[in-house]
Amino acid sequence: MAVGQVAFPHMHRVVGIELGTACAGIKQTQRDDLLVVQMCEVTSCAAVFTQNAFCAAPVVVAREHLQHAPRWLLVNSGNANAGTGRRGLDDARLSCAHVAKVVGGSAERVLPFSTGVIGEPLAVDKIEAALPKAVIQLSEQNWDKAARAIMTTDTFPKGASLKIDIGGETITVTGISKGAGMIQPNMATMLAFIATDAKIGSLLLQKCLEQAVEQSFNRITVDGDTSTNDACVLMASGCSKVPELTEDSESYRAFADAVLTVCKQLSEAIVRDGEGATKLMRIVVTEARDNDEAVRVAKTIAHSPLVKTAFFASDPNWGRILAAVGRAGVENMALDRVDIHLGDVCIVRGGGRADDYTEAAGQRVMSESEIVVTVALGRGAATQEVLTCDFSYDYVRINAEYRT
Amino acid sequence: MAVGQVAFPHMHRVVGIELGTACAGIKQTQRDDLLVVQMCEVTSCAAVFTQNAFCAAPVVVAREHLQHAPRWLLVNSGNANAGTGRRGLDDARLSCAHVAKVVGGSAERVLPFSTGVIGEPLAVDKIEAALPKAVIQLSEQNWDKAARAIMTTDTFPKGASLKIDIGGETITVTGISKGAGMIQPNMATMLAFIATDAKIGSLLLQKCLEQAVEQSFNRITVDGDTSTNDACVLMASGCSKVPELTEDSESYRAFADAVLTVCKQLSEAIVRDGEGATKLMRIVVTEARDNDEAVRVAKTIAHSPLVKTAFFASDPNWGRILAAVGRAGVENMALDRVDIHLGDVCIVRGGGRADDYTEAAGQRVMSESEIVVTVALGRGAATQEVLTCDFSYDYVRINAEYRT
Repeated sequence: MAVGQVAFPHMHRVVGIELGTACAGIKQTQRDDLLVVQMCEVTSCAAVFTQNAFCAAPVVVAREHLQHAPRWLLVNSGNANAGTGRRGLDDARLSCAHVAKVVGGSAERVLPFSTGVIGEPLAVDKIEAALPKAVIQLSEQNWDKAARAIMTTDTFPKGASLKIDIGGETITVTGISKGAGMIQPNMATMLAFIATDAKIGSLLLQKCLEQAVEQSFNRITVDGDTSTNDACVLMASGCSKVPELTEDSESYRAFADAVLTVCKQLSEAIVRDGEGATKLMRIVVTEARDNDEAVRVAKTIAHSPLVKTAFFASDPNWGRILAAVGRAGVENMALDRVDIHLGDVCIVRGGGRADDYTEAAGQRVMSESEIVVTVALGRGAATQEVLTCDFSYDYVRINAEYRT
Repeated sequence: MAVGQVAFPHMHRVVGIELGTACAGIKQTQRDDLLVVQMCEVTSCAAVFTQNAFCAAPVVVAREHLQHAPRWLLVNSGNANAGTGRRGLDDARLSCAHVAKVVGGSAERVLPFSTGVIGEPLAVDKIEAALPKAVIQLSEQNWDKAARAIMTTDTFPKGASLKIDIGGETITVTGISKGAGMIQPNMATMLAFIATDAKIGSLLLQKCLEQAVEQSFNRITVDGDTSTNDACVLMASGCSKVPELTEDSESYRAFADAVLTVCKQLSEAIVRDGEGATKLMRIVVTEARDNDEAVRVAKTIAHSPLVKTAFFASDPNWGRILAAVGRAGVENMALDRVDIHLGDVCIVRGGGRADDYTEAAGQRVMSESEIVVTVALGRGAATQEVLTCDFSYDYVRINAEYRT
């Protein structure tokens, strides 16, 4: 039950980046759940990870290995290897060693990623057994299979891909993501892997990724629960004919825009696939004093169970939006300066119901599957946007039945 | 669908405090929705109100009138008179004037309270018409009728009452509350009215109320949504034979304990009646550095939709609790010092699954309707407790259908 257009796009291959999948049978035995990504020797690699203090074992190991010029990613779905203590760390390292053995490299150059149930030991033997099958599949063409292999409660695979032209040569940016629940990324999200053939140094690549993530993955929320396993990786193979990108250049800005576009598409796909989602809400807060204030108000609205259930019911219950704005912790909020629009309909003007508002007009907007909520605070010039989805019976069902 | 024992208790009358109810037909025409409380002339009155920046019109007016030695409370259910702008304030003041006319007093001595749907104009004419019926009913015996008249989505009336003995004489503390959704009180809750016959000055009474509320109403949450209309009033008629209470006296401490007990019973009743609740969870955070840290961690767990749906499913999914602790924003959290118990079962020891933990043991605790979750942070000596309930299909149903 996803919201809107979610067809898997055509994925441009990225020269120098190969993907291979296999079924390790970690939780399910009917579909691939293991992904190996191989980067060519000269690839730059940037990554951001969850800020959850209880980050999972693979996050700890991937953070360490990021310093050793990574050449391989190992991703499994079905088990998060989180809350697994000492053993979890050993298992993550052992998995990397198995990859190293099969590809003939060093374990330190493998970044491990896991997603799935928390608190159960990882079946490393199953991963070891399936690895040769995944490695033999390595190909630049396998983005769709990779997108499927990393899914958990996702109902559709998520991808985004584009090419930009720079001085007659092209740079490609192609990425995949997964995630549907436990989604309020903080500095990263529930697994996204993006590749480009741009030539770009690691430091600038890391900066580019952090800025893009801040405006994309860090602006979505399904349930306010920041995962233990969030990670987003950007790999640059350097195989494009476009000369090396340097900061403050026009070509870098074009590249950074392309990365941001791909990140936005991948993060929006996660919200469209929010557990039980029937509606996509774009919460736009304008006239805030600064970006932090705008994000705080937008996230308070986006996390309110009362707002989310009202949207599920297509009920233009603007009082709940107003109440959420009021409890967002903004100091000296002046009620009489606040306006709220649902789509193009003004529902609140100066802190009270707009004189010309009619339930019929509100109802018309609410019956759409994608709704823009605009809250103008009348305090400044900052604008920020947060994407979220509604709260339905199916959210409860999916999460009540998750481990059964 | 309430959790546990919720029979309405025997309510000791409070000499000097009379209550009268009537049906004004504000939202429903089948039951009383209007309450008038009359206090004897010498009554001290203390109150705390919502911290929501968009507090409702009656909250604004009640805050003003609190300075004028209140003698009457006017409460309606069915309409919150919130988000109603200038007209809402006029309506709240006009309602007070109508009370003054019927009882022969001053409008400034009436505190107005409203609860119900947000954003619709208050039908003051209906209140005016019903007021004489309510006033004619005024009696010290009407606590049960009063508890029913202030209900909205509540499934049972909420009361608490006790007598304490001080030097052979008694002090009575009796109170009612309402609330089931939009519940994360901040300095007060969704309407609670408590009366005592103690002799006590207004300033000390206010201090006593604030301290009790901090440890009771401010420690519960149903959905994290702080209401626009929260208010809690403590009236002291001074009719007890116990001499006037003074700070630092043993009798004041006994009285303050009694007020806290009544506040805890009334706030716990709200969680037991949480919209769609099937379980009551007592989240106890121990070994925190300070109380704020303990409350922050407890509320993060209590607000997590993933934790709440797992409890609804009776699933001992401790990974979700761990993930919530990890995202609570505690700096320098040491994973390996965190222990978590479900009831008497240790599920997490040193940040990972306890070696002796079994799913069967976790399942046994989770099948209870009241569950204590204890999280020891291993950082200090502070302990705080937050009460909440689970998240069920019925929460979604109730809030999706609220205005239909």
